[in-house]
Amino acid sequence: MRLGLLGISIPLLASIPAFAGEGKLDTGNTAWMLTASALVVFMTVPGLALFYGGLDKAKGILNTIAMSFSAFAVVTLTWVIVGYSIAYGDDIAGFMGNPFQYIFAKGISGLNNAGYPALLDVMFQLTFATITTALISGSYVGRMKFSAWLLFALLWSIIVYPPVAHWVWGGGFLANDGALDFAGGTVVHINAGIAGLVGALILGRRKDTALIPNNVPLVALGAGILWFGWFGFNAGSALAANETAAWAMLNTTVATSTGALAWMIVEWIHAGKPTVVGISSGIVAGLVAITPAAGFVNLIGSIFIGSIASVLAYLAVAVLKPKFGYDDALDVFGIHGVAGIAGAILTGVFADPNVGGSAGLLYGNPGQVIVQIKGVLATMVYSGILTAIILLVIKAIVGLRVSEDEEIEGIDSTQHGEKAYNI
Amino acid sequence: MRLGLLGISIPLLASIPAFAGEGKLDTGNTAWMLTASALVVFMTVPGLALFYGGLDKAKGILNTIAMSFSAFAVVTLTWVIVGYSIAYGDDIAGFMGNPFQYIFAKGISGLNNAGYPALLDVMFQLTFATITTALISGSYVGRMKFSAWLLFALLWSIIVYPPVAHWVWGGGFLANDGALDFAGGTVVHINAGIAGLVGALILGRRKDTALIPNNVPLVALGAGILWFGWFGFNAGSALAANETAAWAMLNTTVATSTGALAWMIVEWIHAGKPTVVGISSGIVAGLVAITPAAGFVNLIGSIFIGSIASVLAYLAVAVLKPKFGYDDALDVFGIHGVAGIAGAILTGVFADPNVGGSAGLLYGNPGQVIVQIKGVLATMVYSGILTAIILLVIKAIVGLRVSEDEEIEGIDSTQHGEKAYNI
Amino acid sequence: MRLGLLGISIPLLASIPAFAGEGKLDTGNTAWMLTASALVVFMTVPGLALFYGGLDKAKGILNTIAMSFSAFAVVTLTWVIVGYSIAYGDDIAGFMGNPFQYIFAKGISGLNNAGYPALLDVMFQLTFATITTALISGSYVGRMKFSAWLLFALLWSIIVYPPVAHWVWGGGFLANDGALDFAGGTVVHINAGIAGLVGALILGRRKDTALIPNNVPLVALGAGILWFGWFGFNAGSALAANETAAWAMLNTTVATSTGALAWMIVEWIHAGKPTVVGISSGIVAGLVAITPAAGFVNLIGSIFIGSIASVLAYLAVAVLKPKFGYDDALDVFGIHGVAGIAGAILTGVFADPNVGGSAGLLYGNPGQVIVQIKGVLATMVYSGILTAIILLVIKAIVGLRVSEDEEIEGIDSTQHGEKAYNI
Repeated sequence: MRLGLLGISIPLLASIPAFAGEGKLDTGNTAWMLTASALVVFMTVPGLALFYGGLDKAKGILNTIAMSFSAFAVVTLTWVIVGYSIAYGDDIAGFMGNPFQYIFAKGISGLNNAGYPALLDVMFQLTFATITTALISGSYVGRMKFSAWLLFALLWSIIVYPPVAHWVWGGGFLANDGALDFAGGTVVHINAGIAGLVGALILGRRKDTALIPNNVPLVALGAGILWFGWFGFNAGSALAANETAAWAMLNTTVATSTGALAWMIVEWIHAGKPTVVGISSGIVAGLVAITPAAGFVNLIGSIFIGSIASVLAYLAVAVLKPKFGYDDALDVFGIHGVAGIAGAILTGVFADPNVGGSAGLLYGNPGQVIVQIKGVLATMVYSGILTAIILLVIKAIVGLRVSEDEEIEGIDSTQHGEKAYNI
Repeated sequence: MRLGLLGISIPLLASIPAFAGEGKLDTGNTAWMLTASALVVFMTVPGLALFYGGLDKAKGILNTIAMSFSAFAVVTLTWVIVGYSIAYGDDIAGFMGNPFQYIFAKGISGLNNAGYPALLDVMFQLTFATITTALISGSYVGRMKFSAWLLFALLWSIIVYPPVAHWVWGGGFLANDGALDFAGGTVVHINAGIAGLVGALILGRRKDTALIPNNVPLVALGAGILWFGWFGFNAGSALAANETAAWAMLNTTVATSTGALAWMIVEWIHAGKPTVVGISSGIVAGLVAITPAAGFVNLIGSIFIGSIASVLAYLAVAVLKPKFGYDDALDVFGIHGVAGIAGAILTGVFADPNVGGSAGLLYGNPGQVIVQIKGVLATMVYSGILTAIILLVIKAIVGLRVSEDEEIEGIDSTQHGEKAYNI
Repeated sequence: MRLGLLGISIPLLASIPAFAGEGKLDTGNTAWMLTASALVVFMTVPGLALFYGGLDKAKGILNTIAMSFSAFAVVTLTWVIVGYSIAYGDDIAGFMGNPFQYIFAKGISGLNNAGYPALLDVMFQLTFATITTALISGSYVGRMKFSAWLLFALLWSIIVYPPVAHWVWGGGFLANDGALDFAGGTVVHINAGIAGLVGALILGRRKDTALIPNNVPLVALGAGILWFGWFGFNAGSALAANETAAWAMLNTTVATSTGALAWMIVEWIHAGKPTVVGISSGIVAGLVAITPAAGFVNLIGSIFIGSIASVLAYLAVAVLKPKFGYDDALDVFGIHGVAGIAGAILTGVFADPNVGGSAGLLYGNPGQVIVQIKGVLATMVYSGILTAIILLVIKAIVGLRVSEDEEIEGIDSTQHGEKAYNI
């Protein structure tokens, strides 16, 4: 009943502290964190699903969408049961939090230091866990059993994501090292990129590895939704509506624009023509690269980070992948992994103390680069090994791949009994 | 002129109360209600339009989109002329508000109790009136004259929606009973669901009632937009940026994820394969079911509500509808009606006093279930009877259905002279 | 590192002014301006791109999308380098700001008068510069070299947009005249509309000028995203979360609904059937028309502005264009130009002092209409002449049009080597 609710809300806004010893509700920060959380949900459902879906072949688009949607749903549940606790519970040996501390948000109430409800931390961080898991699917599409994917999402979102989040944001060992990761370059993008690469190797190649996007406008739509939602991801990671959030938003815009243009130009030179798939990929590469840096660098740093990372990601996709022959179907490693690694290290180069209070190499602190590299390597090793173990266990239980006939017929019809278009 | 506006805005932010006797502007609550209003508009235009449009046959997608868009436009006008007044004007016998009180927002100025401009109440509630009317169209698609639909939107948004909103939120008889409806389970979803069912019976069956979605990616996009916008719908219904809003957002995420998984599993068992249309339907069922409960239940309650309602909606769509043969084309009754009724009653079961201050059956207050059922029945009876009368009046004036030839040729070409795709 | 950031953010929220002599951070206004900025980015990437893309022929949709995306990226860079300085730097003779003042946001820190970070002004206004440039592309599609377009975006966003923004919002000569332009009717829509018309004349007609929308659902999606984002555009132009923003949002909703219905009705009468392309066009016409008026008029004014402008835009598109034969491919002049001019002048008619403090003709101030017309004419003359010069210079350097063979084969394949759909 709304009138009743209104009655309840008034005391919160008055001068009496509503929750024990925790100061006053900051409705502005609360409004921003609500908005930012909604924006990041929108990145996965439907942003990423459509970006990947449009890139895939027509006979696999629905499976691709189902992987993102189901990952979101599964990880929401693992997160509120144990994920949040592992990431943010009381530290155990610098490695993980107490996994039983906050089951179903138990004991979370009142306001945190920024004056918004602590419950919103569970919500906002949930959106990171969900998209990280969903991102990985881009590497596995076209040949994975849907049941195996569901099992993977379940296990990976408990065993891999939350500990890494704990290391960087939950008071774990990387936090103590002083690693800079503003919005999740390491935790989200390198983590997902490596899991994508390892999975591509374990799953093996599809029969037909050509990239034949079935619906490029859908790719552009997905890239646009990802950009929009990424404002919640990056500017929301200021965890307040303040100048740091403004820096994060402006840096995100500048680095992403630069990433789009850099990919366009290098593709124009290298492949002869600038494509919309390329511009969209450059957008994502720019977004990924600026993620760890968004609240730490100035606009010139953003331009360097966006362009360097985008060119490296282009080379990974257009040169490295064909050379080595791994089937990272929709370039999860090529874009999220490579641009993520570039962004993480370049954050240690370009961090400007006038923006976020931390200095990088160019501002007299070369040690930051070493700290950044350490964070990158720790994530790569942990994510790589654990992802391999999880996939091998699933392979032993239910198998990983659909049959060859099913793959050729099309994974939409064989796994979902559905056809994308009846036009 | 922006500089001038800035000049005007400064006094509002200073300590002098800007509007007579109404305290201080809360910019945080205002920011959130602006955002929430925009999000709910986005649900209808284009979210719902594309969700329904993708589900329909290729020859009817544009008519389906036109029904949502035109409903939004028509109801915006009826709302600012008489709808808001009927819902929120001075109570007349517990049944409706004074219909002439706030014509064109006359006399609405200053701040309400939560410290945001009272004008935003007109805006936020407008978005509920518009989507409720548009929801109904999903049951009528494929055979209704567009002129009859426009007339229906006009009449239904004056005669049916605003009184029901008044009963629950405007100080009417259900509000006085203590019925819990956080964000509109009764007012929006049961109301629309019953109107859909009654209309399906009065309109009669289409020649070809098979569900052949012309564009499943569009269905997924629509479901994603609906979910995103629903954060405004549910968390916005806290009418403040506070802990209740945080509960509403997190509960919405958990119940919706559960709803998606529950539909997926039951469809997998019952029909053999988990479809993207099914996962998307489960998302909507979860969203509908948690709507009345979002600010009242805890996360375990959300899991029960999302899964129970989703399974019931699946059964309504896959078993009940074929058995009885009514042509609820895109399952407005099956999803919004059934999940809405389940959610309304389960709110009375799971309401946790530690979340929203109201106790349900499981917290020692069995009477709440009775109150909830009373609200459901009152809405069903009123909406059912009045919808029937409105449709029969329209039938007498302009007729309800297109001719059989027009239906077979396709309602897009015969009603709109347009073809969806020229690919 | 989030914990670190949190530590930094706390002092901002406490009573000590964080930045020299600039008062206290208003987190509510900051939250709203962050949200509004994100919304306006979403209008261009991907809203406008898909709206235009869906309207274009299937063989040109990707080029159309590439024009919007690349315009956004290019203009982001010109804006942070010189555009913002030209628009908002210290006034030079009423014509422009000091172009070197704020290069890369140099010297912009602390809070502005509304209590949000001054950096957000760079961000919010960036979104206006980018969409204005992208809007123009709708008139040029189907025959322009992509390299010529990139050059055009570069030059136009430096030479044309920022001075006009300075005149109205940066303390230039129109600001001093008292011209009313709440959110950019003159600066954005008339500016882009005239640039579209002039470019259409200089580029010349396409071989096939028929409007054959390849994907009408994409048009509807684009229109919906534009509407949603426009709430950031119009209500964000209050530059605060206050009652003016609430007026802007409600007026936007009412005028847009009216615009949609007016186009629908006039098309129904004039052309025989109401189309989804028509309803979507009416939405955009209503949005354009209310832009200058959103914070100045009441709801009755919105209804008049939305309906008058929409009917005039319909006549421009359906009668004027065929009569004169210019190839304004996707009706940039017809909709943005005509509805923009109508909206600008009608703002001078309907401005209600009780809403925004400024009176128009109907409230005893006929002089406002003259001031509005002066602003319209100044923009038309400047934008028209400078756009022509820019295009003629580009023509001399790289040429403007693709070859006739390339145009017939399709601009997607010849400029981008890509095909939109592989379904």
